[in-house]
Amino acid sequence: MEETSGILVDLFVLFAAAKVAGELFLRARQPPLVGEVLVGILIGPHALGLVGSPDGSLIDLFEGKGGEEAAEEALTVVLDVLALLGVIILLFFVGLETRLRDLLDVGGRATLVGVLGIIFPFVLGFALIWTTDPANAEDLEIEAAFVATAMVATSVGITARVLGDIGAIRTRESRIILGAAVVDDILALLLLAVVSGLGEDNIDALELGLTALAAVAFVVFAALVGTRVIQQYSIHLERLQIGNAPFLVAIIVMLGLSALAGFIGLAAIIGAFLAGMILAEAKERFNLEQQALPVYEFLVPFFFVIIGTKVDPGAFTDGTVLAVALGVTALAVVGKLMGGGLASLGMPGRSAAIVGTGMVPRGEVGLVAASIGAGIGAISDDMFSVVVFMSMATTILAPPALVWLYRGYRFEAPEVTKAVEEPGLPEL
Amino acid sequence: MEETSGILVDLFVLFAAAKVAGELFLRARQPPLVGEVLVGILIGPHALGLVGSPDGSLIDLFEGKGGEEAAEEALTVVLDVLALLGVIILLFFVGLETRLRDLLDVGGRATLVGVLGIIFPFVLGFALIWTTDPANAEDLEIEAAFVATAMVATSVGITARVLGDIGAIRTRESRIILGAAVVDDILALLLLAVVSGLGEDNIDALELGLTALAAVAFVVFAALVGTRVIQQYSIHLERLQIGNAPFLVAIIVMLGLSALAGFIGLAAIIGAFLAGMILAEAKERFNLEQQALPVYEFLVPFFFVIIGTKVDPGAFTDGTVLAVALGVTALAVVGKLMGGGLASLGMPGRSAAIVGTGMVPRGEVGLVAASIGAGIGAISDDMFSVVVFMSMATTILAPPALVWLYRGYRFEAPEVTKAVEEPGLPEL
Repeated sequence: MEETSGILVDLFVLFAAAKVAGELFLRARQPPLVGEVLVGILIGPHALGLVGSPDGSLIDLFEGKGGEEAAEEALTVVLDVLALLGVIILLFFVGLETRLRDLLDVGGRATLVGVLGIIFPFVLGFALIWTTDPANAEDLEIEAAFVATAMVATSVGITARVLGDIGAIRTRESRIILGAAVVDDILALLLLAVVSGLGEDNIDALELGLTALAAVAFVVFAALVGTRVIQQYSIHLERLQIGNAPFLVAIIVMLGLSALAGFIGLAAIIGAFLAGMILAEAKERFNLEQQALPVYEFLVPFFFVIIGTKVDPGAFTDGTVLAVALGVTALAVVGKLMGGGLASLGMPGRSAAIVGTGMVPRGEVGLVAASIGAGIGAISDDMFSVVVFMSMATTILAPPALVWLYRGYRFEAPEVTKAVEEPGLPEL
Repeated sequence: MEETSGILVDLFVLFAAAKVAGELFLRARQPPLVGEVLVGILIGPHALGLVGSPDGSLIDLFEGKGGEEAAEEALTVVLDVLALLGVIILLFFVGLETRLRDLLDVGGRATLVGVLGIIFPFVLGFALIWTTDPANAEDLEIEAAFVATAMVATSVGITARVLGDIGAIRTRESRIILGAAVVDDILALLLLAVVSGLGEDNIDALELGLTALAAVAFVVFAALVGTRVIQQYSIHLERLQIGNAPFLVAIIVMLGLSALAGFIGLAAIIGAFLAGMILAEAKERFNLEQQALPVYEFLVPFFFVIIGTKVDPGAFTDGTVLAVALGVTALAVVGKLMGGGLASLGMPGRSAAIVGTGMVPRGEVGLVAASIGAGIGAISDDMFSVVVFMSMATTILAPPALVWLYRGYRFEAPEVTKAVEEPGLPEL
């Protein structure tokens, strides 16, 4: 176990940097998450290089098993697992703020936002890459399809954090965004499965159909049956002898549904979100939010700062790469605004703009699509950098826009028991 | 990041198994940590094999960088980092319960317990291996020295947990044990450095002296200066804008001192213990124990259950291995009882027995010595199994003995603010 203690230096640097940056951005009245991502870029291996390099004892572990290269990959895996735990806790908290009946209230609208918010960015992105072919792709259709897919999926964690920071998590627009993000995530992952299949030259329609079926069954089952089980049986948790049993069972459900989501081919965060939504039925009785808050504050910063470390700012010194990156980013924003706006017809203009803007951040979901594409060789290194830029830029642009759109908005009084001082998600 | 989501299955299985086993052992009136270690053996790669096997997407990450072997090692690293975070939080809590002035009260006695508790087990262990040569060692002195070194260092985490479970963490005996464990850890790690140097044929007295100096300087500086800094300046933490600043600064100090301890060649847990001890000065003002408790409950079980997964129960079907294992275990127990008893002359007999018994568990510290020895080829696979057996057996034997020795003991009323329901460490 001591061979890994060098990794503690990385964890210390990441956590301390995230918190210092968060504090500075708060003082400058900016969302702390932007500070956390930017400081991640600064300390990451592409800039100062303060994190991400394995030390001697870690390299020794991989002697004869890939050596230094494998040790570096292993360190990345460790940090990715921490980031994954962070984003899982984040989505769990979002779920805790989401009651199923609230979600069903906005279900039709959310589905429409989700579907249109997929179609517009995909078509626009595909058209841009297909008509310009900026990277002289070997297989242009596949590359265009991958970039377009990366432009599709909203990273609801970023939006949820901003909505939480400004106390707007329980507004109607927030519920539509969160509902749409569930639809959006499921559709985007199906799309990714299709495009990956195309990229690997062996698309299997039956397997794809089964994945789709499993996904829908998982969401419906978890939401309907899980909610009922918690409503009826959570009272028995008080009979367990182990300390803080409800909180520990909540963690088990969260890890279990996240693992199950990953197992059936969905993003793990969907399982975490559903776990939170199921447990929202029991959160007041057991004070789950206050219990889980320190775990949130410990792990969530790792997600944002580690996302930052993955960005290579050097790629954009090339003018073409920069131009394509700006074009893809612009279409990614416009596509979501068009989708959200069209789906929100009949709502006040500001609400439609909020819904569209809330769907803009791509965050880690775009990065996942990019890394899968790069992994199977379907997109070039330059297009990888472009997609990363788009993910980061949309993530950085959306928060101030949302704050601006919500200025002067009168929030309903929060009805939750206020263990947490601020309504909604804790600031970080 | 999604390539790593298969690891969530391992985390779910480990956490859920630990909690179920803990609940069952609590109901059987046994220390839950024993259940956690035993269930770890059961689900580990040497028995049911429910955890520890990398899935396809993790293996793909290491294509051309060591392949499946490297992926398996990387998964081990991930779990080891989680276990390390768990034991760091555990020792941080132990530190939070330890005031420097309390420790200095028992300082002379604790030093004596630490020193004698090193000498006796080392001499007995060395003599046993050196006279019997059970594994036909290539270099008998080196093998005997490694086994003897593994018998030296107390894993104070196990004892601290038991003392916490029964509410005895603030007794005089506990303070002696915790103080002795600090001395013991520092001396044991120096001994390990010497023995590793012998095993590698290049012992450098100057380097060794510098390590010793750095170690002493670190402990004294952290304890004296850190404590004063917290006493004088912690009030300013309230001026930070970030939510829950005192808790987050505590986490930063904990990670920072743990990393620093590892960096200067000490066990990371010594840094975590010192961080807790420093912050004990401010814990009432900021309610640090209650804040950190959920992080403790989330991470500490990983330490115990992962220790369990490292045990191979199959090695002991060989009669000689089993006999040596029992002999080494018996001498490891007797050595600590002799050391603790002799150092506790003048104290009541029960107190001396408690101090000696509290030093018995070797836990992860013995495993570290064993793995370093195996890593440089100084001990055979069989002797590795023997040392692991001794570590586990002492860990499993000590808790019930401690509980028995403390029966009917009248504890002082705990003076801490009772955020946590039970005095001392939370049960788990």
